[in-house]
Amino acid sequence: MSLKTNIIPDVLAHRYASQEMCQLWSPQGKYLLEREFWIAVMKAQRDLGVDIPQEAIQAYELVKGKIDIPSIENRERILKHDVKARLEEFCELAGHQHIHKGMTSRDLTDNVEQLQIYNSLKLISNKYATILHHMSAWSLRYQETIIVGRTHNVPAQPTTLGKRIAMFGQEMLLAFRRLEHQLTNYPIRGIQGAVGTQLDQWVLLNNSSESVRELSQKVRHYLGFTHTLNAVGQVYPRSLDYEVVSCLYLLSSGIANFAKTLRLMAGHELATEGFQMGQVGSSAMPHKTNMRSSERINGFHQILNGYVNMLMGLAGDQWNEGDVADSIVRRVALPGAMFAMDGQLDTMLTILKEMGFYEAMIEQELSKYLPFLATTTILMESVRRGIGREFAHEIIKEHAVATANDMRNQPHQINDLPERLAADERLPLNKKEIHDILQDTNRYLASASTQVNIFVHEVKKIVQRYPHAQIYQPPSIV
Amino acid sequence: MSLKTNIIPDVLAHRYASQEMCQLWSPQGKYLLEREFWIAVMKAQRDLGVDIPQEAIQAYELVKGKIDIPSIENRERILKHDVKARLEEFCELAGHQHIHKGMTSRDLTDNVEQLQIYNSLKLISNKYATILHHMSAWSLRYQETIIVGRTHNVPAQPTTLGKRIAMFGQEMLLAFRRLEHQLTNYPIRGIQGAVGTQLDQWVLLNNSSESVRELSQKVRHYLGFTHTLNAVGQVYPRSLDYEVVSCLYLLSSGIANFAKTLRLMAGHELATEGFQMGQVGSSAMPHKTNMRSSERINGFHQILNGYVNMLMGLAGDQWNEGDVADSIVRRVALPGAMFAMDGQLDTMLTILKEMGFYEAMIEQELSKYLPFLATTTILMESVRRGIGREFAHEIIKEHAVATANDMRNQPHQINDLPERLAADERLPLNKKEIHDILQDTNRYLASASTQVNIFVHEVKKIVQRYPHAQIYQPPSIV
Amino acid sequence: MSLKTNIIPDVLAHRYASQEMCQLWSPQGKYLLEREFWIAVMKAQRDLGVDIPQEAIQAYELVKGKIDIPSIENRERILKHDVKARLEEFCELAGHQHIHKGMTSRDLTDNVEQLQIYNSLKLISNKYATILHHMSAWSLRYQETIIVGRTHNVPAQPTTLGKRIAMFGQEMLLAFRRLEHQLTNYPIRGIQGAVGTQLDQWVLLNNSSESVRELSQKVRHYLGFTHTLNAVGQVYPRSLDYEVVSCLYLLSSGIANFAKTLRLMAGHELATEGFQMGQVGSSAMPHKTNMRSSERINGFHQILNGYVNMLMGLAGDQWNEGDVADSIVRRVALPGAMFAMDGQLDTMLTILKEMGFYEAMIEQELSKYLPFLATTTILMESVRRGIGREFAHEIIKEHAVATANDMRNQPHQINDLPERLAADERLPLNKKEIHDILQDTNRYLASASTQVNIFVHEVKKIVQRYPHAQIYQPPSIV
Amino acid sequence: MSLKTNIIPDVLAHRYASQEMCQLWSPQGKYLLEREFWIAVMKAQRDLGVDIPQEAIQAYELVKGKIDIPSIENRERILKHDVKARLEEFCELAGHQHIHKGMTSRDLTDNVEQLQIYNSLKLISNKYATILHHMSAWSLRYQETIIVGRTHNVPAQPTTLGKRIAMFGQEMLLAFRRLEHQLTNYPIRGIQGAVGTQLDQWVLLNNSSESVRELSQKVRHYLGFTHTLNAVGQVYPRSLDYEVVSCLYLLSSGIANFAKTLRLMAGHELATEGFQMGQVGSSAMPHKTNMRSSERINGFHQILNGYVNMLMGLAGDQWNEGDVADSIVRRVALPGAMFAMDGQLDTMLTILKEMGFYEAMIEQELSKYLPFLATTTILMESVRRGIGREFAHEIIKEHAVATANDMRNQPHQINDLPERLAADERLPLNKKEIHDILQDTNRYLASASTQVNIFVHEVKKIVQRYPHAQIYQPPSIV
Repeated sequence: MSLKTNIIPDVLAHRYASQEMCQLWSPQGKYLLEREFWIAVMKAQRDLGVDIPQEAIQAYELVKGKIDIPSIENRERILKHDVKARLEEFCELAGHQHIHKGMTSRDLTDNVEQLQIYNSLKLISNKYATILHHMSAWSLRYQETIIVGRTHNVPAQPTTLGKRIAMFGQEMLLAFRRLEHQLTNYPIRGIQGAVGTQLDQWVLLNNSSESVRELSQKVRHYLGFTHTLNAVGQVYPRSLDYEVVSCLYLLSSGIANFAKTLRLMAGHELATEGFQMGQVGSSAMPHKTNMRSSERINGFHQILNGYVNMLMGLAGDQWNEGDVADSIVRRVALPGAMFAMDGQLDTMLTILKEMGFYEAMIEQELSKYLPFLATTTILMESVRRGIGREFAHEIIKEHAVATANDMRNQPHQINDLPERLAADERLPLNKKEIHDILQDTNRYLASASTQVNIFVHEVKKIVQRYPHAQIYQPPSIV
Repeated sequence: MSLKTNIIPDVLAHRYASQEMCQLWSPQGKYLLEREFWIAVMKAQRDLGVDIPQEAIQAYELVKGKIDIPSIENRERILKHDVKARLEEFCELAGHQHIHKGMTSRDLTDNVEQLQIYNSLKLISNKYATILHHMSAWSLRYQETIIVGRTHNVPAQPTTLGKRIAMFGQEMLLAFRRLEHQLTNYPIRGIQGAVGTQLDQWVLLNNSSESVRELSQKVRHYLGFTHTLNAVGQVYPRSLDYEVVSCLYLLSSGIANFAKTLRLMAGHELATEGFQMGQVGSSAMPHKTNMRSSERINGFHQILNGYVNMLMGLAGDQWNEGDVADSIVRRVALPGAMFAMDGQLDTMLTILKEMGFYEAMIEQELSKYLPFLATTTILMESVRRGIGREFAHEIIKEHAVATANDMRNQPHQINDLPERLAADERLPLNKKEIHDILQDTNRYLASASTQVNIFVHEVKKIVQRYPHAQIYQPPSIV
Repeated sequence: MSLKTNIIPDVLAHRYASQEMCQLWSPQGKYLLEREFWIAVMKAQRDLGVDIPQEAIQAYELVKGKIDIPSIENRERILKHDVKARLEEFCELAGHQHIHKGMTSRDLTDNVEQLQIYNSLKLISNKYATILHHMSAWSLRYQETIIVGRTHNVPAQPTTLGKRIAMFGQEMLLAFRRLEHQLTNYPIRGIQGAVGTQLDQWVLLNNSSESVRELSQKVRHYLGFTHTLNAVGQVYPRSLDYEVVSCLYLLSSGIANFAKTLRLMAGHELATEGFQMGQVGSSAMPHKTNMRSSERINGFHQILNGYVNMLMGLAGDQWNEGDVADSIVRRVALPGAMFAMDGQLDTMLTILKEMGFYEAMIEQELSKYLPFLATTTILMESVRRGIGREFAHEIIKEHAVATANDMRNQPHQINDLPERLAADERLPLNKKEIHDILQDTNRYLASASTQVNIFVHEVKKIVQRYPHAQIYQPPSIV
Repeated sequence: MSLKTNIIPDVLAHRYASQEMCQLWSPQGKYLLEREFWIAVMKAQRDLGVDIPQEAIQAYELVKGKIDIPSIENRERILKHDVKARLEEFCELAGHQHIHKGMTSRDLTDNVEQLQIYNSLKLISNKYATILHHMSAWSLRYQETIIVGRTHNVPAQPTTLGKRIAMFGQEMLLAFRRLEHQLTNYPIRGIQGAVGTQLDQWVLLNNSSESVRELSQKVRHYLGFTHTLNAVGQVYPRSLDYEVVSCLYLLSSGIANFAKTLRLMAGHELATEGFQMGQVGSSAMPHKTNMRSSERINGFHQILNGYVNMLMGLAGDQWNEGDVADSIVRRVALPGAMFAMDGQLDTMLTILKEMGFYEAMIEQELSKYLPFLATTTILMESVRRGIGREFAHEIIKEHAVATANDMRNQPHQINDLPERLAADERLPLNKKEIHDILQDTNRYLASASTQVNIFVHEVKKIVQRYPHAQIYQPPSIV
């Protein structure tokens, strides 16, 4: 039987989303928005001459906070229509019948859902600015800490830890700009009627196109939007929902990339997501520091993938002026995506607060691989001393491959490639010269440090516009 | 903050899934399954010599039904580990520390989740058999009711309404067989330990491979499975979840196809999903019979698409012996998919109970298009009377195109193609002969009726194995 | 065996994409872009002091057009490295070894692929402007043609055909603005080296940060981009690919919606995608006008869905500084998505050229349903004449439902709801008054006409920026 | 312009799929299958009394191999109908007009495509059996090689390398059984006519239901299928395509998991996909062994994800008796999925031929972490000697955490946890006892070895049914 009394909580809302986001999408929160929207429309209609007594408006205002979910659900069980159930509940509470005039269900629900979406995006943008703020700080802290850069998951060239963090931050910046563009341009549907011609408002407002236009403006203004949709059917184009949720997926991508690399680094004991005391180890395996939050971030990313797909299937599937084949999908996917995003952001913020890097391990890894990573430079310096490029390359390659193989067979052996190269008389570099090359780590930084500076600078400009970004603290996560 | 007291219901469970399905996936239902599983393992361990007092087992049995969600959640908030929270709660209730011996969290959760999945599939198979039963009955009822068959959404050839229903039923049969194969072969993970070597049970059972094997068998037997997985890591392969949920999508496809065609037929007033009195019309537009349930079925299908995608991303993403990047995704997608499927099935059963077909409209449409649909036969009969095939075709096409165009320009005009053909002296058929061809509707049935019989027969064999299929009634839907 | 001589054509390129788009993504086209890019980098390096003789540059310039695919593939078969194969081929043709200095493979391929993407988006934006232009013209042409608006696929309220077209156009406008924003802000990766630190250019340019910065600017300028990525790894963030292709999906959504509604309208003989003579009918069923192009548009939309999913899986899956797990996916999905989009656009343009509407059928449908659609107005006029609202509603509903049922049982019967209402003495309207209401169709237009005007105006502003939009003709499609 | 002369190759076919798979899906291969199918139907019709001269059949047979693609495409450009173009080409070559009698386009294409699918699945099953064969051999080879088992990507418990391989093999076994079930039960559509009633064959065979049934059986027999669909529309249910391609995704999942873990192992220098001489290193970074093939396997997996999604959208979207909205999607996704799967299988087989494990590195890692992994056993042995469990646990945890932290700060330090524990007088174990526990590695194997045996045994039974599995060699890959 549907509409049950024994409630199964929405797992994303219950376990992972913040109080603010839950409030936005809870039945209580939504029904309150609806009632305020009904009242706003009613007031506008009254201003435009519709016969609605002032005391009716007051009566609605007075009871709008009395949201009795079981009573509403009881009505729905009988009426088999959710909006009608909420309409009758509100009217009976107020003792009047003046809301919802000339409105269809979607005039109510589409607009209120857009408001929920818009407010969610604003909440998300604030948290995302906080993430950028912390990414910037971490990037700066490790701006010049040289670390083995990896491609194909194997050592490739040196980079800095700060640059690596800035690299993921760069992707987040791109997504953040898309979010800001989305927020600035998000258009509201407005009161458009059963097929989008505003017929019922037209009739209600005595066929005055002027009054209908004014009503539209008042409603848009009330909702706080700057853009409005001109020509729609019963519903606004569902590709707009896809656009929003695919923006969330973009926001999630840089975070997911960062979490994945953190998991890889933890596998080499270079990093941990939980540096605090007490977090080190489970009872059975006390040495173990699991990357549960980072893994969860990747899980949230995959959940968003699913919600994007739900909404993707609605875009391009409108029949004529619309229907409700999309209704249940949006009921699931829109709050689901917002909860998942919100949970991911707070999880990420927790990691950014608690993570740590094992610098000694980073150094050890570097010293193990540095002779390999420096071969390009050794080659160049050899050529500079007069030896032919191809010949030098052949010699270096021979020793590098041999050293790598030996080290895999005798793992405790130190990387003696420098010694081998110095001992090879064909090469014009002696032990000290090679040693000097390896010591001069600054030459491996290249643009890394500058890139960090630029990233930090770009974030700074953003954070100035989001004053809360520097102080927001994520709630404790489970 | 997570783990909230003010609960947002899971929308699919709350509004659409059945009580039985909700029970299976509710926290209460799950925790009870877990406790029973812990007790079953404990008993098996005791039988195999582990020092567990009989009274401890009794103590656990006694309190297993006392499931205090807030208390458990409170523990989780402190411990930051969900399984540990439930473990401690149960042990404190029982006053003993004998469950979970040698087990990892996944030894508990993977097996219990598989049990939830398995029981859900059984519930689904019962309802699906009921759907087949009703599809068969409808198909038989309209076995010989000729209707305009459409391809490209335009009239193509005659078929029968019963055949059309059998056509969708055929697809459901295919999916149902896949479901039965899935159920028969679904393998349980069993107690496998932290990395799948059963090390901790091995230690617990004094390094006796014999005892470990016996434990595995007892657990499998307790859970009611016939197949077991041999070599796994910490988790069973997540492609198994994908396989299950993609089977749900298959089950949903035939239903979604049927609903979509019903929506199309409603657009031509050939069918309605709600034939009962009182369902005709909304208050504002009393003539209107909305296809809300059919549209909702298509919505459920799209929701399943999203859950399939969530789980698709987990398959092929196992790192070493596994981790919990999948955890949150499965928490969302597995119950979500089961709820959506369940809601779709009950919605479909409601439609199958309440739908109706407007036979007069079906006849009118047929009479309008029949002369076009019969042109192949008229051509053949002409050729039989000696006229050349290409020549006859040219003549018929000329008149058919002209008639079709005239009818689009003068819609009230009757299809006078028969008269035009009879009047054309080049064609060797007179008015009565053409009229006889059009009247002999039996010749348009072709294999339609036989196909219905075969479908009905196949369903009958299935329903015999599902005795409840004939009596199950869906709950009232919102 | 891979790299075959017997070639299977890419089906999207071969059958559906335009010559221009194919040129952009063909091996020939791509290799030429690569060679030009190599030369551009080489010139920049020479300007910055790298020892590259002028005659080498000339030699490369001279042979850049000699693209011998079999020779390149032969090299790849031996070298097992695609970029190296193309590098050696070009160098051997030129007789020099001066390109690709300090570059990794991705320094070449990422930038060239971004150029392909960027140029594809520009091609798409031009065609999309053309589509908007034609949508605007059709909308204006049928601005005041009243048509039965449908929700839930059944008659709901009147709208105009022009407004319906504007409604789909509105969705296209939203997507188009997103495309323009994407184009304006699309950032280029640039020459970044193996792990993104520009180390090898740094070394090449004598550790001069100034020279490295100049090189970056010259390259960006050469490629024609205004934005550049600051901190990347070996690759640019793959979420950028997802962003681009999800923009294509948005562009496709309004088109797919339009095509789907056109298919529905064809089912009612209100519209056809091919109005020209000769297109009416297949040989077997001459009356039949199949909606093959509209169906194909929906097919392209689903293909884009698949490519979006391919690329979605790459976003958030970067390991450290990157690898080539994405390589093969992008090889398939990027050109695939561009070809599908391009094919969809030309198909849509063909429909916009050839489609037609059966106005007599539109009128007949309207006259059949108008009395139902007008009940709201009749109710209001009755109330104005003094009867109670609820009472009037009850009477009207009674007759409307009875009429609808009678019409479904006797389909040839004319909608006599007006007569029934006039005959009911409880209602204060006589036959003439009701007839006048039904005749005054202007009152059903409401905002429809204005919405068309606004749409037309918005498109006009865009088309002014795309001068080719008014003259572009799609190629003949298969 | 469509149908181009300058051909862009299908990238998956051209670079990655095998000759056999390409042959199956090439235009040439497909058109030959079509012609053979036409001839088979023609022969059956002749046997059942349709007036078709024997010499016509011979004429068709004689020319069936003459497949002139440009000529066919030229016809399509004029006729705008692909099947008609191929029909006319074949008839003109033969000089007769006797094929395609009573058939619709889909009677031809659906059946031939099913044949392509079926043959592809057989090809895939053979290669998959080969993969299982090699997985089994590798598993046996390293059956008792102890390795650090990892969960959350960090050391958890010991397992064996053979067991790890068997773990991935287990998942492949599950998928393989599903493939075999799919192959055994795959049903053919057969000759069903424009709306699935077989009307045109009925008319052709003089309204003889007996003859129509015989024709169906002859066709099914010719195609080599055991199951046939009873009631379909113009097309077979598209969920069948989804079922097939989601089976490919299952097949790919175990392979993708294996490849991903191999990439992780390569990051720790425990494994390499290319052990042969010469493969070690790129020219620029000679120490580097990139995991290009493993990464590519993960890429193929993601490509399959996209094709699954393309086809997923077709299931549940049938309108009435069907249309061609699916056509272009299937043209892309069906061969695409088969090529990707085939390429993945040959890539996997290449890895299985060339990969290697660095046993010294495996041992080093084990020795580093073993003291941690053995804490459970040390705990148990302590308890056995009389110390309280909780007390012992506390002591061990204290030392383990301290040791882990020290090792991260002084990476070159050896794991001295055994010494620390021995030195702690609270614990009743001395240095030798702890040393003995650590040395007795057999106790860490637990069920690992048995699981390998079972896996090997199960594969053996399969390989016996696939004689080619032991000898098949993948082609050289690029």
